[in-house]
Amino acid sequence: MGFTVKEIAAALGAKAVGDVDLSVTHAAEPADASPTALALAMNPDYGDTLINGSAQVAVLWDGADWQALGLKAAIIVARPRYAMSSLTKLMDQGPDIEPGIHSTAVIDPTAEIGKNATIGAFVVIGHLVKIGDNARIASHVSIAKGSSLGSDILLHAGVRIGPFVSIGDRFIAQANATIGGDGFSFVTPEKSSVEKVRENLGDQGDINQQSWTRIYSLGNVEIGDDVEVGSNSTLDRGTIRATRIGRGTKIDNLVQVGHNVQIGEDCLLCGLVGVAGSARIGNRVILGGQVGVSDNIFVGDDVVAGGATKIFSNAPAGRVLLGSPAMKMESQIEIQKALRRLPRLMRQFSELQKSVSKNGEKD
Amino acid sequence: MGFTVKEIAAALGAKAVGDVDLSVTHAAEPADASPTALALAMNPDYGDTLINGSAQVAVLWDGADWQALGLKAAIIVARPRYAMSSLTKLMDQGPDIEPGIHSTAVIDPTAEIGKNATIGAFVVIGHLVKIGDNARIASHVSIAKGSSLGSDILLHAGVRIGPFVSIGDRFIAQANATIGGDGFSFVTPEKSSVEKVRENLGDQGDINQQSWTRIYSLGNVEIGDDVEVGSNSTLDRGTIRATRIGRGTKIDNLVQVGHNVQIGEDCLLCGLVGVAGSARIGNRVILGGQVGVSDNIFVGDDVVAGGATKIFSNAPAGRVLLGSPAMKMESQIEIQKALRRLPRLMRQFSELQKSVSKNGEKD
Amino acid sequence: MGFTVKEIAAALGAKAVGDVDLSVTHAAEPADASPTALALAMNPDYGDTLINGSAQVAVLWDGADWQALGLKAAIIVARPRYAMSSLTKLMDQGPDIEPGIHSTAVIDPTAEIGKNATIGAFVVIGHLVKIGDNARIASHVSIAKGSSLGSDILLHAGVRIGPFVSIGDRFIAQANATIGGDGFSFVTPEKSSVEKVRENLGDQGDINQQSWTRIYSLGNVEIGDDVEVGSNSTLDRGTIRATRIGRGTKIDNLVQVGHNVQIGEDCLLCGLVGVAGSARIGNRVILGGQVGVSDNIFVGDDVVAGGATKIFSNAPAGRVLLGSPAMKMESQIEIQKALRRLPRLMRQFSELQKSVSKNGEKD
Repeated sequence: MGFTVKEIAAALGAKAVGDVDLSVTHAAEPADASPTALALAMNPDYGDTLINGSAQVAVLWDGADWQALGLKAAIIVARPRYAMSSLTKLMDQGPDIEPGIHSTAVIDPTAEIGKNATIGAFVVIGHLVKIGDNARIASHVSIAKGSSLGSDILLHAGVRIGPFVSIGDRFIAQANATIGGDGFSFVTPEKSSVEKVRENLGDQGDINQQSWTRIYSLGNVEIGDDVEVGSNSTLDRGTIRATRIGRGTKIDNLVQVGHNVQIGEDCLLCGLVGVAGSARIGNRVILGGQVGVSDNIFVGDDVVAGGATKIFSNAPAGRVLLGSPAMKMESQIEIQKALRRLPRLMRQFSELQKSVSKNGEKD
Repeated sequence: MGFTVKEIAAALGAKAVGDVDLSVTHAAEPADASPTALALAMNPDYGDTLINGSAQVAVLWDGADWQALGLKAAIIVARPRYAMSSLTKLMDQGPDIEPGIHSTAVIDPTAEIGKNATIGAFVVIGHLVKIGDNARIASHVSIAKGSSLGSDILLHAGVRIGPFVSIGDRFIAQANATIGGDGFSFVTPEKSSVEKVRENLGDQGDINQQSWTRIYSLGNVEIGDDVEVGSNSTLDRGTIRATRIGRGTKIDNLVQVGHNVQIGEDCLLCGLVGVAGSARIGNRVILGGQVGVSDNIFVGDDVVAGGATKIFSNAPAGRVLLGSPAMKMESQIEIQKALRRLPRLMRQFSELQKSVSKNGEKD
Repeated sequence: MGFTVKEIAAALGAKAVGDVDLSVTHAAEPADASPTALALAMNPDYGDTLINGSAQVAVLWDGADWQALGLKAAIIVARPRYAMSSLTKLMDQGPDIEPGIHSTAVIDPTAEIGKNATIGAFVVIGHLVKIGDNARIASHVSIAKGSSLGSDILLHAGVRIGPFVSIGDRFIAQANATIGGDGFSFVTPEKSSVEKVRENLGDQGDINQQSWTRIYSLGNVEIGDDVEVGSNSTLDRGTIRATRIGRGTKIDNLVQVGHNVQIGEDCLLCGLVGVAGSARIGNRVILGGQVGVSDNIFVGDDVVAGGATKIFSNAPAGRVLLGSPAMKMESQIEIQKALRRLPRLMRQFSELQKSVSKNGEKD
C-alpha cells in the first residue's frame, strides 16, 4: 500500500514537483527516511540531512530547491505545521477495531445505534443509549443508560461514559478516559474548616470534629461537536446543572474537569491540568501542562496560561498568564529575574544599612 | 415519577409551606426551572430570577417570603449547602447496574458474596474474595484474590482492586480507579543519586551508573468505612505494612497515594493530589487540588492546604498552608504581596545606593 | 508455606546466625511481628521494639547483637535497603492470574504468543501481535494490532497497549495504564495564540478565532527491557518518529509522557510527573513527584529534580534541580530563605529610605 506524490499533494492542497507518480509507503523524519519514505523536511535546517540521506521524496519548505537536495520529487508547503494535519490524516491507519459488532458485546435492546458501527469485544451499552452513524467503539468500553452520542465518534479501549451524558459528533476519547463520574462534593452539618478558612483568610477558628456527607450529582455532562479527551482523563457530572465542554475543545491526558465546570469552544487543556468545581472557562483558552484553575472562578476568552500556572482568581480575556499564583507573563518574568538577584540584594542591603548608619554617626 | 413537596421537606428535615402536595420531577437551577422542577434558590441573590422565571416550587433561604416570590410552595432550609446532601440523595437515580449477577461475570467459586448483590457484565472476582450485602459492582470491574469488602459498596465500571485489599462498608470507587497497585520502590546496589542528594543537600557527588532493582510490595491496602475514591485515582500497596485510609476520608479524581501512606479519618484529598510513599496524614486534613506531600513526612490533624501547595516537611496540627514550599497561609500571602513589589524595590534600592554614596561623598 | 532462615539468607546473599532451620511465614515491621514472622529491623532504632516484642527471627543491621535482642535466629545485612529487593522478591506471591489462557480471552488467530503464558478473563489480543515466553496478562487487558512484547512481561488488569507498540523483556505495567494513545497535537490554519506568545514573549497580538485541526500520530512507542509503568499512567505515540523509553527506566502512577518524548535508561519518574511533547531526557534522570518538563527541551544525564520542580529550559547533565521555574537546588534554597525575610526587608528598606532622606536633609 502506498501513496503517490500527486495524491499526497492533493490531500495537502500543495504543489507537487518532479516525478509526481512516484509512490511512498510511509512518512519519516529526514534522517530516518528510506527511498520509499516521504521525508518531512519542513525547514531549511533539514537541507544537509536530505543531501546526505537516502530520501527520494520529501515535503519541503516554501522556497526549497528540491533538485539541489537530490530528490526525485517533492511537495512544497507554505505552513508546514498545518500541512501535517492533512498529511497525517491521509496516512493514519485508524484504531484497531474489527468491522461489525463483536459477538461478545452486551448491548441493551433499547439502545439505538446508527449505521455502519464497529463495536469491539466486551463492550457494554446501556438502556436507551443513542449513538449516531459510523461509530467506532473499541474493546472494553462501557456507556451507561440514557447517554447520547453523535455520529463519527471514536472511543478507544476502556473508555467509561456515565449515565445521561450528551456528546456531539466526531468525538474522540482515548483509552481509559472517564466521562460522567460523580462530582467531588461533600458537606458537613456545620461550617467546615474550608468554609471558615475562606471566610477568614487563613484562620480556621475552632475545630469541629465532623464527618463529610455526600452531595449526589444529579446533573450530567454535555459535550459539543469535535471534542477530544485524552487517555485516563476524568470529566465529572454536574450537581444540578451540567458540566459543559464547548465545541472544538481538546483535552489531553490525565486532565481533571470538576463538577459544574463550563469550558468554552476551541480550548486546549494540556496534560495533568486540573479545573476545580464550578470554574468557568471562555473560548479559545489554552492551559499548559499541570495548570490549575481554582473552583468557582472565571477565565476569560483567549487566555493563555503557561505550564504549571496556578490560576486562583478571575482572569480577564486575552491575558497571558504564568506562575503560581498566576500573573501576567511579563510581570512573572520580571519577578523571576528579580528573585534570582534577591539573595545578593539582601547582602547589599545589609552593607548599605551599615554604611548609612556610619554616615549618620559621622554627621 | 416525582416527589411531593411534603416528601422532600421530610427528607431534608425542613419546613414546607404552601401547597405541600404539589409534585416536582427534578431539581433545577432557578434560571432553568420549569413549573415541574424544584428550583434551588438558596440565597437572596436568586430572588429576581424566581420572580421572573417559571418556577412554582423552590427550596429557599431562611427568611424568604415565598409568596412574594410568586411560588405555590416552598421548602425553607437553614443551612442550604447541607440540605443539598439530603435532597440530592433523595433524587439520585443510582448507577447503571442491572439487578442480579450478569451471566458474563467470572466469579471464583470460593468467593463469598453477600445478599442482594448486583454485578455487571464482564466482572472478574477472584479466589476467596469476600463482599458484604447489597454490593453494586458495575461492568468490567476486577477484584483480585483474597480481597475483602464490606456491605453496601459501589464500584463503578473498570475499577481495579488488587490482591488482599481490605475495605469497609459503604465504599464508593468511581470508574477506572486502581486500588492495590505495586508501590514505586526501587533500590540500587550502592547509594543512589537520590540518597546522596538527600544526605548532602543537593550535591550528588560522583555519579555511579547503576540500574534499579525492584522492591516488591508485600503489604496491602486497608480502607475504613465510608471512604470514596475518585475516577482514575491510584492507591498503592504497602511494602511490608499496609497503606491505610481512615474512615470517612474522601479522595477525588486522579489522586496518587503512594506505598505505606497512612491517611487518617474524615480527610478530603482533591483532584491531582499526590501523597508520596510513607507519608502520614492526620484526621480531617484537607488537601486542595494538585497539592503534593513529600515522602516520609507527617501532616498533622486538621491541616488545610490550599490548591497547589507543596508540603516538603512536617506540618503541625491545625496549620493552614499555602504555596510551594508550603508555609502558613498568612506568611505566604504576605510574601506574595512583597514579591509583586520586588522589581520596584530593586530599582528603588539602586537609587538609594547612589543617593547614599553621594551623601557619603558629600560628608 | 514458609521460608527457613537459611533459605532467606541465601536469597539475600547474607549471613544467617542462630537456629537457621527456623521457619517464618511472612515479613513484618518489628512492632507487628509475631513469633512466625520475619521482623525487619534494619537499623539500631528498632532494638527496643525487638526486645519488647514477640519476634523470634529478624533481619538485622550490620553489627547487631541478635542474642541480646532476644532472638532465636537472625540474618545480618550490610545494605538493608538493597536487601529488601531480594527479600521481597522471594516472598512475593505474584499477581492474581490463573495459569493458562482463560476461555473468555479473544485472541486473534494471527497473534503469536510464547510458551507458558497465563492470560486472564476478557483479554483482547489483536492482529499480528507478538508476545514472548512466560507472559502474565491479567483480566481486561487489550493489546492492539501489530504490537510486539518481549518475554516475562506482566500486564495488570485493564492495561491498554495501542497499535504497533514495541516493548522489551520483563516489562511490568500496573493496572489501567495506557500505552500508545494518540499524541496531543493540534494546529490552526494560521498562527495560533500559543505560537505567537512563544515568539513574542507573552504578547499574543491580535486574536484570531480559529479551530484546531488534528495532527494524527503515525509514530508508535518503543520501550526497552526492564521498564515498569505505574497505574493509570499514559504514554503517547509519536507523530512521525517513536516515543522512546530506555532500558531500565521506571515510571510511577499517573505519569504523562507526551508524543515524541525520548527518555533514556535507568530513569525514575515519580507520581504525577508530566513530560510534554518532544522533550528529551537523558540516562539515570530522576524526576520527583509532580515534576513538569516543558516540550522540546533537553534534560541531561543524571539530572535529579526534587518534587514539584518545573523544568522550563534545558538542564545540563548532573544538575540537581528544585523549584518553579527549576534552578540549582542550592540557589533555590538560598532564594527560599531570602523570600521568607522579604516582607521584613521591605519594611527595613522603607525605614532606611526615610533615614537616608533625613541624613540628606541634615547635610
